[in-house]
Amino acid sequence: MTLATPTATTPFRFDKSREAFARAARVIPAGIPGHLGPAEGLHIPHDAFPKFSSRAEGTRFWDLDGNEYIDYMCGYGPNVLGYNDPDVAAAANDQARREDVVTLPSSIMIDFAELLVDTVASADWAFFAKNGGDTTTLAIMTARAATGRKKIVFVKGYYHGVAPWTQKLDYPGVLEEDVANNLMVPWNDLGALRQMLADYRGEVAALIAQPYMHGNFTDNELPAADYWQQVRRLCTEHGVVLIVDDVRAGFRLDLAGSDHYFGFEADLICFCKALANGYNVSALCGKDALKEAVSSITYTGSYWMSAVPFAAGIATITKLVELDAPALFDRLGRRLTDGLVSAAADHGLSMIASGAPALFYLRLDDPTGSLMLHQEWVAECVQRGVFVTSHHNHFINAALTEADVDRTIEIADESFAIVAARHGLGF
Amino acid sequence: MTLATPTATTPFRFDKSREAFARAARVIPAGIPGHLGPAEGLHIPHDAFPKFSSRAEGTRFWDLDGNEYIDYMCGYGPNVLGYNDPDVAAAANDQARREDVVTLPSSIMIDFAELLVDTVASADWAFFAKNGGDTTTLAIMTARAATGRKKIVFVKGYYHGVAPWTQKLDYPGVLEEDVANNLMVPWNDLGALRQMLADYRGEVAALIAQPYMHGNFTDNELPAADYWQQVRRLCTEHGVVLIVDDVRAGFRLDLAGSDHYFGFEADLICFCKALANGYNVSALCGKDALKEAVSSITYTGSYWMSAVPFAAGIATITKLVELDAPALFDRLGRRLTDGLVSAAADHGLSMIASGAPALFYLRLDDPTGSLMLHQEWVAECVQRGVFVTSHHNHFINAALTEADVDRTIEIADESFAIVAARHGLGF
Repeated sequence: MTLATPTATTPFRFDKSREAFARAARVIPAGIPGHLGPAEGLHIPHDAFPKFSSRAEGTRFWDLDGNEYIDYMCGYGPNVLGYNDPDVAAAANDQARREDVVTLPSSIMIDFAELLVDTVASADWAFFAKNGGDTTTLAIMTARAATGRKKIVFVKGYYHGVAPWTQKLDYPGVLEEDVANNLMVPWNDLGALRQMLADYRGEVAALIAQPYMHGNFTDNELPAADYWQQVRRLCTEHGVVLIVDDVRAGFRLDLAGSDHYFGFEADLICFCKALANGYNVSALCGKDALKEAVSSITYTGSYWMSAVPFAAGIATITKLVELDAPALFDRLGRRLTDGLVSAAADHGLSMIASGAPALFYLRLDDPTGSLMLHQEWVAECVQRGVFVTSHHNHFINAALTEADVDRTIEIADESFAIVAARHGLGF
Repeated sequence: MTLATPTATTPFRFDKSREAFARAARVIPAGIPGHLGPAEGLHIPHDAFPKFSSRAEGTRFWDLDGNEYIDYMCGYGPNVLGYNDPDVAAAANDQARREDVVTLPSSIMIDFAELLVDTVASADWAFFAKNGGDTTTLAIMTARAATGRKKIVFVKGYYHGVAPWTQKLDYPGVLEEDVANNLMVPWNDLGALRQMLADYRGEVAALIAQPYMHGNFTDNELPAADYWQQVRRLCTEHGVVLIVDDVRAGFRLDLAGSDHYFGFEADLICFCKALANGYNVSALCGKDALKEAVSSITYTGSYWMSAVPFAAGIATITKLVELDAPALFDRLGRRLTDGLVSAAADHGLSMIASGAPALFYLRLDDPTGSLMLHQEWVAECVQRGVFVTSHHNHFINAALTEADVDRTIEIADESFAIVAARHGLGF
């Protein structure tokens, strides 16, 4: 009999998070909706996860029990400069002292639109809302208004928000009418797209896609060489509006848009998460040819002209430009994923890192094909202060340092050792 | 020939607003989306309206040219305590220093849900989002999931946001599939509802309605005696989920919900505007019988667990309770509408005030049946510092004083005189 592998750290306890979750479950459906609620129970190692945070600063947050994390989820994207970035906070506070939601919009809305038009290659204009999904819905309505057609081509494995039209027929509350005009093609499959557009010639209003396949539960896939150029050509040829959903990847790959990063121009591009470092705003940007169509849609919301998020957005984009943030994200992401792959190999394990380094996706290869080995490693990391999650891409923010990355790799290394020992894997 | 009626005030100029709008029109579809854009050009006296604000405090805002307004639109609802309320701002700033959008929610989400459950009569739980429309969509999806039925009964003249299912088939970008399951009944017509539920027995998932008919372009209508009690009874009898859209009226009629105000209980109730004094948050609340159904819906958003709006919401509801705000709104609304009706009569004009005083709707009766006389009066008021608008209900906020109301009536009086003289009406 061998002793348990000695560990350098003591796993965290989550007593206060557990108590708070019991309170939450009484007054909030599912306790916590979305990724961290029990509905995701099969996909996240729940016992190893804290449930509530109490403070956040830079690349770190502290949970309700006071445990400190280097956070690679970044609020599922919005934290792009570091939590509570002082420059963004100063701009937001300054604006808040003047005005926020008023009967008339503040003229700072124009400043923000002008900045996006100057920064984003495919943006001739910007329309502001609150959710990423507000912009994907406006995009497909605009495409339908512009073309007089109904059908939308999706790429299998997509996520474009939670509006009924984005969901699947077997999801609760979704009707066949909601998804009746949705067509699916596989990612990176030009032949399938060509066939689809031929089969439905004159019926397709839009193709909507993420800039690369950064879906959940599967290794992420970049576009094949010339893929996007051919998609662009096919869309133009068929009069199909090309919509890029850059809600997740936007401003992390390229400040001019992820379409620019991959060398093409979208007709409409959707932004949200990284747009204002967490202040609540989203934007649909697009080409002048669609400006009249988007203007024709009945589309408004109570908080859509909130001025504080515009001020935060201007400060965020300005600072991302100053930092040349996408290069920083790429460098830190590569340092981290290279380190993780190497540390795993040291324990005879195989870590697969996929997608763009700024939004790296991880999978610890399991000879049985199960995703559970990866979940076990995630559980050990989280309980030691590295917040990663299973089966979802991660995010880099500009407050992360090389020292943070190196400390992350140390904790990951310890976690690989525990998992390898538990299963008698590796050396 | 008579001289023009002498006026006590000089109409405002809007040079900077006009210049800013020209800039906006280049980079934002329609320049300003929603109520104040040119799409509403037929319904608003555009030349008399400023386009952008620069500062707001209490019940007032200042436009880009520095003109000061007593504001009766309150950001189209969100301003319920007064712009930049110090207590709400302090709570929000305190929370912002700790955390806002983080990978895990802050436990302040639970505090806010508990406060709503304690405050709102029909709330056993609360689910948070960003738009009022996020909550109406979640409500109908929940009703469909719970009942396994498709059809939704609407009341003619409704507004439940901008999701495609809420729109009309002749609106750009809307498909027949989007609205295929929408049924319409007239307001206050129990016979029509009874017939509709009989005709579609077993097919109706929900009835969605505002607590009273506060629609645009028409005098607002309160529920007839016993109307809501009978609607409640019919919904229960037919297994139909009763959804109250309290986005506009919520927390202005009754802090326990507008259903409570009218003496019934909704199954689901939608809140937004007044929930956090302009901080960006909405909430669907409901009964325990639907908690499991709402939990089953795939529904989440990037900013939905933003902690700062929760802190603002707690401060807002707490202060509304302390002030007994609905009673205040009713008293100020009555003082204002009584004063306007009386001032109009002094000029031989007939002003009709309808709806609840806290959300009064105005129409200056025109013997020709046109709405233009009212628009002319609105134009004169706005150019003199009373911000009212045409064909939409108004809103009272708690920073309004009796002195503000009295000054408003003076300006309104001057505006009645101008309109009466221009048309040779009155005495």
